[in-house]
Amino acid sequence: MLAIYFDGAPEVKELPLPDPAPGEALIRVSLAGICGTDGQILQGYHHFRGVLGHEFVGVVAGPADSPWLGRRVVGEINIACGACDLCQEGQPRHCRDRRVLGINGHDGAFAQYLTLPAANLHPVPPEVPDEAAVFTEPLAAALQVTESGRLSPGDRTLVVGDGPLGLLISWVLALHGVQVSLAGHHPEHLALARPYGVETFLEKHLPAGDYPVVVEVSGSPGGLELALSRVRPQGLVILKSTYVERFLLDPAALVVPEVRLVGSRCGPFPAALRLLRQGWLDPRPLITQTFPLSLGLTALEWARRPGVLKVLLDCR
Amino acid sequence: MLAIYFDGAPEVKELPLPDPAPGEALIRVSLAGICGTDGQILQGYHHFRGVLGHEFVGVVAGPADSPWLGRRVVGEINIACGACDLCQEGQPRHCRDRRVLGINGHDGAFAQYLTLPAANLHPVPPEVPDEAAVFTEPLAAALQVTESGRLSPGDRTLVVGDGPLGLLISWVLALHGVQVSLAGHHPEHLALARPYGVETFLEKHLPAGDYPVVVEVSGSPGGLELALSRVRPQGLVILKSTYVERFLLDPAALVVPEVRLVGSRCGPFPAALRLLRQGWLDPRPLITQTFPLSLGLTALEWARRPGVLKVLLDCR
Repeated sequence: MLAIYFDGAPEVKELPLPDPAPGEALIRVSLAGICGTDGQILQGYHHFRGVLGHEFVGVVAGPADSPWLGRRVVGEINIACGACDLCQEGQPRHCRDRRVLGINGHDGAFAQYLTLPAANLHPVPPEVPDEAAVFTEPLAAALQVTESGRLSPGDRTLVVGDGPLGLLISWVLALHGVQVSLAGHHPEHLALARPYGVETFLEKHLPAGDYPVVVEVSGSPGGLELALSRVRPQGLVILKSTYVERFLLDPAALVVPEVRLVGSRCGPFPAALRLLRQGWLDPRPLITQTFPLSLGLTALEWARRPGVLKVLLDCR
Repeated sequence: MLAIYFDGAPEVKELPLPDPAPGEALIRVSLAGICGTDGQILQGYHHFRGVLGHEFVGVVAGPADSPWLGRRVVGEINIACGACDLCQEGQPRHCRDRRVLGINGHDGAFAQYLTLPAANLHPVPPEVPDEAAVFTEPLAAALQVTESGRLSPGDRTLVVGDGPLGLLISWVLALHGVQVSLAGHHPEHLALARPYGVETFLEKHLPAGDYPVVVEVSGSPGGLELALSRVRPQGLVILKSTYVERFLLDPAALVVPEVRLVGSRCGPFPAALRLLRQGWLDPRPLITQTFPLSLGLTALEWARRPGVLKVLLDCR
């Protein structure tokens, strides 16, 4: 099969079809999405070697006796051991021995086929086209911000960063009834939030004032600096970005105003699929471009250009 | 009156008696405590100019018609405007225009007299000697960690830092029924926690394993690094230290394990006084040395020596 393999540098190459382990399904990938994390892996994050990619929608192609056979699915990316203390406590996403699809110890979705434990799969409702279902993973991650602290519909919230995840977060919060402001650098991205009732600002024009909740999703130290300067005393900063650079933190910026800085990662797939099925949000306008898998290197390069939102790979 | 005045360098000098503003009381200081924050002010923190000091116990000496006259008191250090949005919302400690005793815009407690709004005062129960009452402010700050997030008696907690505030925090958590471990550098400090049922470790001998809650009170970037390395996924790190250095934060260290980093500052004086009155904790073993106010510069220098716990000034 064709795949984008990373071994210090990305390469589109032919690989043997993966062999599902016991409990795993074989999935024929339809579409896969390129995420900022993929770009970081290319820079050395997690020291991953293997097939890249963790956002996908596909069809179960094996094993032959699988009850999932022929079903259209999306899949959770954390592969838990089931045995450690955190798995036993019902936190498999934080499993101490976890592998992560296309990120850590398990080949990913930029390929014609992948394997995942059947327990990780979720069926895609027929109402949701592939081009929307491929956003299930980032949409679930967006929903996770509402799990990251006391966040009430009455809390005015600032989202810093107008990439795909920032836009999804602003939409999700708007669906919660929250008064959302989104700050970014790209007028054409900000425009995609306004139909959801989100107030948008170019960062340099963000008016004075502070917010009970700020979500930092810019992927840059400057975004965290802005977030900390705009959070209200005793407020909450939710950190969604991982990036390779380090942030120079002044502890007094947290201690004196008693601010909470909370990391947030993967989220609930079923909730994301419900929102997509109802049509309450439609991620398809976030797609900048779709490339065939064979042009994967061009796609990866394209995804890193400024102003580009989501780049998809068509793996069919 | 005699006072330690800071104007780029500390100086013991004669100053005019302070004149209480309307609503303020004049307080004759009995004892004052030197805190790590005072040392930071000497290094330029907050750009404060004036009389240093914010931990004290004293006796109200004026105005002549004050209902507080002659009462033994401690005082909250934040002087709120009463008019801004945060004051109106019942968060005067976070007042946008606040002054802070001996830290920001208001002369402090390393003096024979100070002034504070009468609303900031709390009477000291007769059971509490001056040498214990002078710890009310740091003990209240220690209690504030229990306000800093979901902290339940079942959460094993690691306290990093065996200075006076770290010890007070370990005692307070032990009184909550929490299983507390304290890590520090000074065997003789750690010994003061063991009578409270706290398990103690030299940092270099801290056994492997992680904790649902870690309190960072070491006052150094190394302490925060240890805290982040020992917090459990989805756990809580409470940050009590302000320091002049910056910490190089890897955002992935918060985002991937979904850790919460929460700043915590001043706390509830009435609760601290109740604990002191009941005798459930006795801070007096934390006193390393007491100096007369006239030897204030020696006392400040002494307080910064490694291994020294609390240095008091006798201002009577």
